[in-house]
Amino acid sequence: MSTLSEFHPSNRILMGPGPSDVHPRVLKAMATPLIGHLDPEFLKIMDDIKVMAQATFQTSNELTFVVSAPGSAGMETVLVNLLEPGDEAVICIHGVFGGRMKDIAERCGAKVTTVESPWGQPIDAQQVKIALENNAPKLVAIVHAETSTGVLQPLEEISQMVHDAGALMVVDAVTSYCGAPLKVDEWGIDAIYSGTQKCLSAPPGLSPVSLSEKAVQVLEDRSTKVQSWFLDLTMVKNYWSGAKRAYHHTAPVSAMYALREAYRLVLEEGLENRFKRHQENHLLLRSQLENLGFEFLVDEPFRLPMLNAVKIPEGIDDNTVRHRLLSEYNIEIGGGLGAFAGKVWRIGLMGESSDANHVNMLTSALQSIL
Amino acid sequence: MSTLSEFHPSNRILMGPGPSDVHPRVLKAMATPLIGHLDPEFLKIMDDIKVMAQATFQTSNELTFVVSAPGSAGMETVLVNLLEPGDEAVICIHGVFGGRMKDIAERCGAKVTTVESPWGQPIDAQQVKIALENNAPKLVAIVHAETSTGVLQPLEEISQMVHDAGALMVVDAVTSYCGAPLKVDEWGIDAIYSGTQKCLSAPPGLSPVSLSEKAVQVLEDRSTKVQSWFLDLTMVKNYWSGAKRAYHHTAPVSAMYALREAYRLVLEEGLENRFKRHQENHLLLRSQLENLGFEFLVDEPFRLPMLNAVKIPEGIDDNTVRHRLLSEYNIEIGGGLGAFAGKVWRIGLMGESSDANHVNMLTSALQSIL
Repeated sequence: MSTLSEFHPSNRILMGPGPSDVHPRVLKAMATPLIGHLDPEFLKIMDDIKVMAQATFQTSNELTFVVSAPGSAGMETVLVNLLEPGDEAVICIHGVFGGRMKDIAERCGAKVTTVESPWGQPIDAQQVKIALENNAPKLVAIVHAETSTGVLQPLEEISQMVHDAGALMVVDAVTSYCGAPLKVDEWGIDAIYSGTQKCLSAPPGLSPVSLSEKAVQVLEDRSTKVQSWFLDLTMVKNYWSGAKRAYHHTAPVSAMYALREAYRLVLEEGLENRFKRHQENHLLLRSQLENLGFEFLVDEPFRLPMLNAVKIPEGIDDNTVRHRLLSEYNIEIGGGLGAFAGKVWRIGLMGESSDANHVNMLTSALQSIL
Repeated sequence: MSTLSEFHPSNRILMGPGPSDVHPRVLKAMATPLIGHLDPEFLKIMDDIKVMAQATFQTSNELTFVVSAPGSAGMETVLVNLLEPGDEAVICIHGVFGGRMKDIAERCGAKVTTVESPWGQPIDAQQVKIALENNAPKLVAIVHAETSTGVLQPLEEISQMVHDAGALMVVDAVTSYCGAPLKVDEWGIDAIYSGTQKCLSAPPGLSPVSLSEKAVQVLEDRSTKVQSWFLDLTMVKNYWSGAKRAYHHTAPVSAMYALREAYRLVLEEGLENRFKRHQENHLLLRSQLENLGFEFLVDEPFRLPMLNAVKIPEGIDDNTVRHRLLSEYNIEIGGGLGAFAGKVWRIGLMGESSDANHVNMLTSALQSIL
């Protein structure tokens, strides 16, 4: 075959549901020459990443690490390690990602009870309470920030109920992590996973995960093997900690360089400052979009600052506008998923993309197009 | 917490079992700003990668794609999609990675029959024949290049037997791919997976995979769901091909940039030239090591050019020498695995690391240390 030419992508402004824009320091870190995945210097990088993952999850969980694959694999890691065939699980569904958790839990052989709310609304804690009264689940799983709808799910009340029922509290924090308050220990979260390409602003491909001591005990008490070899934490944890640092699989070295640098940027800014920035830019976007006549999908108390779901005005064609934003302005925003396809836009203000200039560019471009 | 300082790794020469050294063009590609995983320009990158994966696997298989996780996840992808509970599988074991395939196949609920040979020797085709006569396997799985022992496994005779028995031929080509002849279509391989961090010389984290039409038919004829959601090809294939390009998970954008550039380098050199270079540098290393009194573990006809397993001379301490190579010369070589720990070194000449200067640096350093 004739060889293809070098690739020169357009200079996109990423304001969709992820990936978000990546800081030049993170891109530079990616270009660092490789070292081996068992090199003492690489094991030190893993230690650094673990410490920074603990700081950002606000946890002292010993089993805090990074799955060598994207956020969906983090979801599967948590469920496949905590569930065994025949276990009961309560899965809360208020968007695409709750539905994905149900699918995975069923593939683990779990008996799943769902608690649902209409897309665009949070889960009602009282419905979780009823599910806990009628079942004896090993875990309750819920999405903190539903990327498909833009809903921020309150967690503390539900977490208390879950613990009172003796179950594990499992949280999907793919989109909220490093962009909105999230306190793993204080809120009693037993297992949590995220992604790197949202508010953390590293490239996609890794999934930070943390398990409480109680969750680790459940893992150690399994009577069956974890059905996935690649995601089996009984082995993976020996690569991430302990004296031996046993080889399991070859870690994605360059992606870990990038993640380390992205974490450094988060901690230099400070979590509270970062959350404040995400909130302020969300309010700026809101004010500008409301001036243009847009309405938000989600009621105000439950709106995500980093993922703004707005209704597409009557008579406006979704694809035409998004195509023009991309081709004329190099701006990517997200379309709606499922029942919201063609009806909703999802505007991401995540990590480096949570920026007043980004907001101004987008609303100016939208104004010109509409 | 106080922030950690910027990371400056030592300037390593990678001559272990992978990752191998990465060309500066690939590092530069990694630092390219991101675009979205559903951007038309990114879908074009996926198309380019698919075409170059087909060219390098020497296949016209339509289902040729890249798993968004390292080679071990590629192994799991192939087995978890082709096996259902109760299926029979013949797994050939002549090192660590054959053993890993058995472990995964059993986690899929398959009834596994093994064909084994002593570590350091290839599998005997006659033993496969006997296993095929005594069982009715759905697939036979075998490692082409055993990274743990340095053995190159002849495949063509076994592949013929497997097809005569009506089974699928599954091959692990993690270490051989792009470094030694490998003809997927001509050799009748039904499912193959590799990694990016060996002779392809991209960073670790992705796994090129290809399935024949017969294997795709087996996938489509499944009566149970694939137990892994993340690796479920009935869904993943709709992201890689077809008109809809349906969202499944967020692809690792930067790693795909790097892979595209690494493939370009392979095809600019040409597969035959690349295989010849790997063979020549292997012979150069062999001649220099034999002058130093080293012996190879594997008999000559079955030696891998890209992974040289040599016996550690009597009275030489494994850890001391490897530590000095790393700390004084910045050279990484691999130790032995399992029963070979402390007895064997594994010297990688893979991709960019298959280079006369690398060979000369290593043997000069070894000579000084010993």
